[in-house]
Amino acid sequence: MSDHPEAPVVPVAACEPPYYAAVFTAVRTANQRGYGETNARMEDLVRSLPGFLGMDHAQNPGGLSITVAYFRDADALTEWRTNTEHRAAQQRGRDDWYQSYTLHVAKVERSHGFTRPQD
Amino acid sequence: MSDHPEAPVVPVAACEPPYYAAVFTAVRTANQRGYGETNARMEDLVRSLPGFLGMDHAQNPGGLSITVAYFRDADALTEWRTNTEHRAAQQRGRDDWYQSYTLHVAKVERSHGFTRPQD
Repeated sequence: MSDHPEAPVVPVAACEPPYYAAVFTAVRTANQRGYGETNARMEDLVRSLPGFLGMDHAQNPGGLSITVAYFRDADALTEWRTNTEHRAAQQRGRDDWYQSYTLHVAKVERSHGFTRPQD
Repeated sequence: MSDHPEAPVVPVAACEPPYYAAVFTAVRTANQRGYGETNARMEDLVRSLPGFLGMDHAQNPGGLSITVAYFRDADALTEWRTNTEHRAAQQRGRDDWYQSYTLHVAKVERSHGFTRPQD
């Protein structure tokens, strides 16, 4: 048996296509004042939206971060994009927190997953 | 002026839609023998394919990794998926290196980027 941390990390599972993925890749600035609180609030907010399917996040220490949020359909994604609190956070991101970012909004056509059988 | 490392990290830029994104999220096992060499070879291989647009990668230390590769069209992605060397590496990944993974293949409908103006 392999060792597991308390809450094992697992990628968001494959959903039934079609669904949407918002891929947000970013490099942050040295000025991260207020980022942690806002990020936690945004995470709570997106998870509360109808049609939210899940989110994966990874960050190279001191470098590039990738967040991928999955949504059931384009309407759910539009609701997230146009949410008033989210828009204010986006503006704050451009003012202070991000050196550069790219957002790719994509319709998932197929997906599959793998989980290692228990030894 | 902010400090930059020698080669500044920047996310893959937004391309002209439509294009394809292959989002690969994974958690690795303790057995990573041979992973580094194979991963480097796969990176060289995918970058050499016609229609390859770029790739972003981030990994939480000891945890989830996300790799997103961008392709001009479905044909370029099919070529990558069915490449003989890549298929052998995928099998090795399931045998040894991955605890779990999910692959989402998606058609990018819109994208945009932001780069901080020079101070």
